[in-house]
Amino acid sequence: MVDLFRGYAAKTRGGQLERFDYDPGPLADDDVEIAVQYCGVCHSDLSMVNNEWGMTSYPVIPGHEVVGKIVAVGSGVTTLQVGQRVGLGWFSSSCRDCQPCLSGDQNLCATAGMTIVNRHGGFADRVRCQAMWAFPLPDGLDPSKVGPLFCGGLTVFNPIIQCDVRPTDRVGVIGIGGLGHMALQFLRAWGCEVVAFTSSDSKREEALKLGAHRTLNSRDEVQLASAQGTFNFILNTVNVTLNWDLYINCLSTRGRFHSVGAIAEPVRLSALPIIFGQRSFSGTPLGSPSTATKMLDFCVRHDIAPVVEHFPLSEVNQAMKHLESGQARYRIVLENDLDKS
Amino acid sequence: MVDLFRGYAAKTRGGQLERFDYDPGPLADDDVEIAVQYCGVCHSDLSMVNNEWGMTSYPVIPGHEVVGKIVAVGSGVTTLQVGQRVGLGWFSSSCRDCQPCLSGDQNLCATAGMTIVNRHGGFADRVRCQAMWAFPLPDGLDPSKVGPLFCGGLTVFNPIIQCDVRPTDRVGVIGIGGLGHMALQFLRAWGCEVVAFTSSDSKREEALKLGAHRTLNSRDEVQLASAQGTFNFILNTVNVTLNWDLYINCLSTRGRFHSVGAIAEPVRLSALPIIFGQRSFSGTPLGSPSTATKMLDFCVRHDIAPVVEHFPLSEVNQAMKHLESGQARYRIVLENDLDKS
Repeated sequence: MVDLFRGYAAKTRGGQLERFDYDPGPLADDDVEIAVQYCGVCHSDLSMVNNEWGMTSYPVIPGHEVVGKIVAVGSGVTTLQVGQRVGLGWFSSSCRDCQPCLSGDQNLCATAGMTIVNRHGGFADRVRCQAMWAFPLPDGLDPSKVGPLFCGGLTVFNPIIQCDVRPTDRVGVIGIGGLGHMALQFLRAWGCEVVAFTSSDSKREEALKLGAHRTLNSRDEVQLASAQGTFNFILNTVNVTLNWDLYINCLSTRGRFHSVGAIAEPVRLSALPIIFGQRSFSGTPLGSPSTATKMLDFCVRHDIAPVVEHFPLSEVNQAMKHLESGQARYRIVLENDLDKS
Repeated sequence: MVDLFRGYAAKTRGGQLERFDYDPGPLADDDVEIAVQYCGVCHSDLSMVNNEWGMTSYPVIPGHEVVGKIVAVGSGVTTLQVGQRVGLGWFSSSCRDCQPCLSGDQNLCATAGMTIVNRHGGFADRVRCQAMWAFPLPDGLDPSKVGPLFCGGLTVFNPIIQCDVRPTDRVGVIGIGGLGHMALQFLRAWGCEVVAFTSSDSKREEALKLGAHRTLNSRDEVQLASAQGTFNFILNTVNVTLNWDLYINCLSTRGRFHSVGAIAEPVRLSALPIIFGQRSFSGTPLGSPSTATKMLDFCVRHDIAPVVEHFPLSEVNQAMKHLESGQARYRIVLENDLDKS
């Protein structure tokens, strides 16, 4: 009898998620199988359900911020054992052989497998991934909260490493949401002077609690203009068009504007303020396995966790709707209740 | 009797240069006075004569690629002596006290003095600057050729230092002209694999002689597309709008597109190729005094010099016209003949 994986899939573009079972086939030599306990809900799940990036194949089980226990390991896996608690994020495999992989940049592997692209993710009772992409949870992290670290968290922790942000830097975070609320915590613990750019009054106080030393109203161009030349690093977590030149001018000499927000429209930059200030505009995707491990250790040491709201997996459609409405504070985590229903 | 400095000035916007004398006033404590022997002609001289940047005050004596001998030093100058041969570039002073100055980034000083902005430059018998901006010429450099190092040369050498270009990198240079022809020499000596992007057939062979291992036709989008993902670093020396996304896609993972060309129109960049490839877009102005000194030493060790055409200073208008026509191969140097006329 085939042991089917049980989950919730969108069967058509933009459709509601419905119960869906599938046969995962034999376990590959270098894969592990994870019994899902918790799974965060990310905007990318919504984008995939709606096929916004043209790479969705239906049915698709979303979910790529998984926390669970290993229940099986492939014959070639030597680093993980059954029973270990692990996390899984956006990437589920990489080739091991290309230059980025050989250089420790497995997250930049051109053929990296993505957990919910042409395969099924973590809104399910089980999910699989290549062993190197299942990150053991260190003691001291609450499994019910930390799923969002594996996509949203890693996305904003990675730039701190890659861009060599220093504890002496003044840094800004644009967008205090699912990603930004973790960025504030990371950067505060990193030792930086942290400023939250937010247009929402309701988020002002929360931003301060999360780690910001102060806030700037991102819709107030006078406030932004008065901050010119003062930021070593600005991390953008939103995907909409901003007043780019105004933000570039907020950078100090050698300052860097870094976007993890996948802005759809072209970004229009004036060259002269970049040249004369020795500034730069850059971006990164999620981090590598090595960076993920550093992030987890850092979270334990500094007591950092996503701020989450819980929904049972059986209420995944309500959860998705809550996310879409922009009301989530700040990340939603689904709890697997498949065996209860 | 006042000892006037004699030079050639534009007295009106876009005007011909005419003989013009001025009283430089008393020598400041930290300044040196240089008897000009040679002075390169840079596009910025033309821009200043035409007030393209809105910061020209007339009359203006252009010229900011000076080589000459020190004939006087201010009372506070301890590092240079009368009789020393030095070079002077775009910057002629910096404040010494701001954070960039204190950090060794005197070239990023917000109040740095510019040799031909609100003061007179090197198309003259003498010119002055703060001592730190007069760079002693090491033995082994030909004074008649190296003036262009102090603006154009430093502009393209500086990114190699600032962007940490590695000898194992594959690098591209866009625009094989006054700046690009020096960049090819620097990068070849740096140990890189060097590719010249040029749309001019006539420059193809010359680019190879100057240090390029190969060339790519920058107007051939098929050639550019076939180079995607292959460059660690692309240095842009032109100031026109390019097919930005095509060049960004030529970058490898972690690749950087760096412009010293002061592009007037906004640069339109797609965010996704930058994010997923961990790429960046950046710029720099001229280098600092410390970088200038490194450049001079590097030129001696690797026998690097600008390729120049000579004109007597008295024929400065013909020289400017030659530059404007785009015919200069690759940089023009004026020889001071004021005492002959």
